[in-house]
Amino acid sequence: MLIVMNRDATEEQVNGVIRTVELQGFTAHPIPGGERTSIGVLYNQGAIDEALFRSLPGVKETLPVTKPYKLVSREFHPVDTVVRVGDVSIGGDSLTIIGGPCAVESEEQVMAIAKHVKMAGGDMLRGGAFKPRTSPYAFHGLGEEGLQILAKVREAFGLPIVTEVMDLDCFDMVENYADIIQIGTRNMQNFSLLRRAGHAGKPILLKRGMSATVDEWLMAAEYVMTEGNPDVILCERGVRTFVKHSRNTLDLSAIPVVRRESHLPIIVDPSHAAGYRDQVMPLARAAAAVSAHGLMIEVHHAPETAKCDGGQALLPDQFDLLCRQMRAIFDVSASAER
Amino acid sequence: MLIVMNRDATEEQVNGVIRTVELQGFTAHPIPGGERTSIGVLYNQGAIDEALFRSLPGVKETLPVTKPYKLVSREFHPVDTVVRVGDVSIGGDSLTIIGGPCAVESEEQVMAIAKHVKMAGGDMLRGGAFKPRTSPYAFHGLGEEGLQILAKVREAFGLPIVTEVMDLDCFDMVENYADIIQIGTRNMQNFSLLRRAGHAGKPILLKRGMSATVDEWLMAAEYVMTEGNPDVILCERGVRTFVKHSRNTLDLSAIPVVRRESHLPIIVDPSHAAGYRDQVMPLARAAAAVSAHGLMIEVHHAPETAKCDGGQALLPDQFDLLCRQMRAIFDVSASAER
Amino acid sequence: MLIVMNRDATEEQVNGVIRTVELQGFTAHPIPGGERTSIGVLYNQGAIDEALFRSLPGVKETLPVTKPYKLVSREFHPVDTVVRVGDVSIGGDSLTIIGGPCAVESEEQVMAIAKHVKMAGGDMLRGGAFKPRTSPYAFHGLGEEGLQILAKVREAFGLPIVTEVMDLDCFDMVENYADIIQIGTRNMQNFSLLRRAGHAGKPILLKRGMSATVDEWLMAAEYVMTEGNPDVILCERGVRTFVKHSRNTLDLSAIPVVRRESHLPIIVDPSHAAGYRDQVMPLARAAAAVSAHGLMIEVHHAPETAKCDGGQALLPDQFDLLCRQMRAIFDVSASAER
Amino acid sequence: MLIVMNRDATEEQVNGVIRTVELQGFTAHPIPGGERTSIGVLYNQGAIDEALFRSLPGVKETLPVTKPYKLVSREFHPVDTVVRVGDVSIGGDSLTIIGGPCAVESEEQVMAIAKHVKMAGGDMLRGGAFKPRTSPYAFHGLGEEGLQILAKVREAFGLPIVTEVMDLDCFDMVENYADIIQIGTRNMQNFSLLRRAGHAGKPILLKRGMSATVDEWLMAAEYVMTEGNPDVILCERGVRTFVKHSRNTLDLSAIPVVRRESHLPIIVDPSHAAGYRDQVMPLARAAAAVSAHGLMIEVHHAPETAKCDGGQALLPDQFDLLCRQMRAIFDVSASAER
Repeated sequence: MLIVMNRDATEEQVNGVIRTVELQGFTAHPIPGGERTSIGVLYNQGAIDEALFRSLPGVKETLPVTKPYKLVSREFHPVDTVVRVGDVSIGGDSLTIIGGPCAVESEEQVMAIAKHVKMAGGDMLRGGAFKPRTSPYAFHGLGEEGLQILAKVREAFGLPIVTEVMDLDCFDMVENYADIIQIGTRNMQNFSLLRRAGHAGKPILLKRGMSATVDEWLMAAEYVMTEGNPDVILCERGVRTFVKHSRNTLDLSAIPVVRRESHLPIIVDPSHAAGYRDQVMPLARAAAAVSAHGLMIEVHHAPETAKCDGGQALLPDQFDLLCRQMRAIFDVSASAER
Repeated sequence: MLIVMNRDATEEQVNGVIRTVELQGFTAHPIPGGERTSIGVLYNQGAIDEALFRSLPGVKETLPVTKPYKLVSREFHPVDTVVRVGDVSIGGDSLTIIGGPCAVESEEQVMAIAKHVKMAGGDMLRGGAFKPRTSPYAFHGLGEEGLQILAKVREAFGLPIVTEVMDLDCFDMVENYADIIQIGTRNMQNFSLLRRAGHAGKPILLKRGMSATVDEWLMAAEYVMTEGNPDVILCERGVRTFVKHSRNTLDLSAIPVVRRESHLPIIVDPSHAAGYRDQVMPLARAAAAVSAHGLMIEVHHAPETAKCDGGQALLPDQFDLLCRQMRAIFDVSASAER
Repeated sequence: MLIVMNRDATEEQVNGVIRTVELQGFTAHPIPGGERTSIGVLYNQGAIDEALFRSLPGVKETLPVTKPYKLVSREFHPVDTVVRVGDVSIGGDSLTIIGGPCAVESEEQVMAIAKHVKMAGGDMLRGGAFKPRTSPYAFHGLGEEGLQILAKVREAFGLPIVTEVMDLDCFDMVENYADIIQIGTRNMQNFSLLRRAGHAGKPILLKRGMSATVDEWLMAAEYVMTEGNPDVILCERGVRTFVKHSRNTLDLSAIPVVRRESHLPIIVDPSHAAGYRDQVMPLARAAAAVSAHGLMIEVHHAPETAKCDGGQALLPDQFDLLCRQMRAIFDVSASAER
Repeated sequence: MLIVMNRDATEEQVNGVIRTVELQGFTAHPIPGGERTSIGVLYNQGAIDEALFRSLPGVKETLPVTKPYKLVSREFHPVDTVVRVGDVSIGGDSLTIIGGPCAVESEEQVMAIAKHVKMAGGDMLRGGAFKPRTSPYAFHGLGEEGLQILAKVREAFGLPIVTEVMDLDCFDMVENYADIIQIGTRNMQNFSLLRRAGHAGKPILLKRGMSATVDEWLMAAEYVMTEGNPDVILCERGVRTFVKHSRNTLDLSAIPVVRRESHLPIIVDPSHAAGYRDQVMPLARAAAAVSAHGLMIEVHHAPETAKCDGGQALLPDQFDLLCRQMRAIFDVSASAER
């Protein structure tokens, strides 16, 4: 942290700040300047309460300098993490495509959709058995029955399964069936759930919170990693802004930023970012163009009957075309990094 | 919902939309206009998938018309809900002041602060035994020991206790000690926790999510109420915006909006909104001026030693002055409503 | 507009609203519903003061239905507008690339950069002679001397020139030299400047305001078109959000939305959206992937000496690679539309 | 500025950064730390191009340290600026109330409203003769006729006049009639207009841009002051956020922040922040509670006939009650500062 003093701060005030820094067990490094003195705080472990220093006499401002995360940081782990699930991997130099319905509704439905996903060259199947919904009156998923359907479909098509966990109570059950356990946007800072995820034997797909900074998101991944689970996949899905023509605003600059800051793989969910079918395809292509490690896209063979978010699901033909476009764009884009 | 057709939509397209509306069990009411046809959707229960209708041929736009909540709505329950805890009440025509530390650190600490809160005329005591923190390396609270300290202090000063619950696992324990159970910002859409709160025998203080609309917030309260708990207190604590000079941007217009839409009491937490001590007092006075039903404010007798958010806690003298100011302002403001 | 009445609105209140609608010269169309009455307002020309109706007794809410723009709307002009400048065109099925420095600094500088732009296959040259800057102490451009340099470089390389106009006073001068006149982000709602642009004999490149909705942006274009200038090119350049890892958040969903709503061409400026060089290339590729009609990108042969925004300018080699990537991605993406 | 190096930055990279700092004429002050080296940049005049340094090899991040403004800063001018207009003043220890219609519509209208403003104890009259409107089809004001009406009303009631200037062309005319010249939200970074305002012989009321940071707003005031006009009044009027229940989100924390950073007076416009009449009164009281130096509020005696923003204008009785409430709250709040 850097503590910036007022122009007219007295020596006594500067010394008072230095004493407080040292009382907290840190080292103070004063930097005399033309206009004012600043004080660097060194050797701190963990977060410092900025507001505390800002309220000391003579202090104008405080600025955080070092990033608060460690295990997720590329500085501590320079090589890309590649998460492997059976034959499929996420991370490194390939593009992984996950397709499937928003919610598991029936065996027939998931079978029909999985067939299309497989034929289009999708790598994994998504589908929710537990659905967090804004309204208590909406469809909340089939629960364990949904997980059993997913397991059957995996059997039939050899597609690994990504499905969401909503709370501590159903974690064991979801962990038992899933290949990758998804933690949703609204749970990104459900710290108890993150700690439990750290003890899971399966990779965690961690969606970005609706108004989370990249730092907060990486700190949420740090929760999972500190408990011992090294396999975290980050998923950008749009943030909330003043813009109302899409459900959320997809923050694609987060992909190069995360790739620079962290070794963890990062994928994109354009379906929830867009919220409308006609925006999903362009945004999915854009995600491939910024070199995301993968995409997770909603597909439905009969969206007008879907119990959840049918209006943002792609039709099988659209998904098929899109897969080909995304892989071509990803290859073109990769030429930039070499 | 209102479905707006394109100017050049064909009769066939209009009829297609009407058929889809009716297939979902709703009633369609076409409104011919000068430029284009619109179609009202009537008699729907619960949410409609807007995006589904927006993707039908000939449809330009869809607009939600009715609000999705029922039990929390003033239309269904015109009289103000007043939540009572012993002799203290929140809601109706009075201003309820809750003060205390961010986190319970020790018995001495809470006793010292509670004494100041009591002397300044505070109505309740706040203090966290379980602390959600952005970093896994930060102080996370004393747990049950903290709850026991709060119980002792309640005994000593007769102040009811507000404390936070973080997950399903510790809910029974918190419910056992607390007078009011707080659900924090990051858990506003932790729907499993909300359902559990609906079965609690204690009132729930529900903080607004960092980027939640008032509709989403009221729907979260609806989750609690549908499970049978009528005592929900809403707490505005600032939303995330592009502004960085305060930790969050306090959305005071939410208070008149919630008071018009809902019968539930609404209070304000200026400490977390501001994040810096010198902004807390003006924002607290502003909350009294918009006729919030109460305030929850962080107070610490020795903030420079606080384990959590010391920089935003008021000193006892500041809290004392502020209580007098807030009550005077609330009285002046109330004259507007009469 | 749709006016939604309270559930318990009286017949008298409904009639009061209808009378007010009719007093304003509009037609009221009441829609009786299960729970409440709504009233459609038909045949209105131009904007209605929503807040006025919302303050009438018995009214719960008002919802705008029709879009406020006409000339820019695809409904009124279904065919894509293609803006032509000499041999170059923007709009329709091609990708137009505009490159160049942030500011014109010297003839040598612009000549050197223009050579690279030309060799990389760029279609036009950008460069500012008048620079709007947040600080009064920053470099504000060379003025007419800068325009003369641009004219010389155009002569030398045959690249049409895009340059910014800052105010009414310098409009004639800029119009005299430029091939396309840029109106910057901070001037998007400088309505006097927009009207003047409507009388210009050159196409207008209209950047989106930092917090403008698509509707407001299209209304700004409508100002230009109502005065008689049909050649408006829209330019997305990122919006302001809570996100701080990039200078702005590029809103790529705006491209499919604008392409559906309007016939005007829309291009993307990834340089100002990103603010940092390492984000410019991925975002530029993403813009090609969402089928923008063009891109405007900052290039500098010696960015460490640039007087303005050197840190976001691409090096010539990067620009060269990027041009090839963008054209390849645009072609792949176009296959979606067919 | 502080330049933070990577953990594994080489000595050569550190020296490269130091050299670049020195090449730009600044002084580099390296700060060795436990984990990494940081480099302070001293003695810089004006803004530094952060992105330039961030793109040098070995650099992890750059942090601005000193604020970019000078003349507006309290550090350079510790005493409150009080702007005087005849007998009325804005700034220091008093609360100044400005009331009036959104737009001047007729002499009768302004006379009727001014009478109410005067009787309620208002200090100044507002009213627009030139109206910036989102739509080219809306009412844009009476122009000079409107200014003449304002002058007559000033004569009749002795109320100084605040009115908006829209562009360079009408500046002389507005300056001729107005007592205080308003620069609107959309023109906050119209730098040509700001420079012209710096040569005006009248005080400038500078509204905050819809998505402007406090730093950018103060820099806009700095433009006016560098040209020689010391009388700038800042006006907070709400910022654009994801929140849609009010037209804008009033950022009341900006008042204590501006009062600490700058000596300039700051007032609040709750009418445009709210957009709906029922929110204006609570927000106006809140503005008095945060110790703003004044308020500017829309009043109309017949809002249902207003040509502009009638739905947010207070009725005369409401304005009268509000004035009494605001003055009482301002007095209570002032006791905090003593």
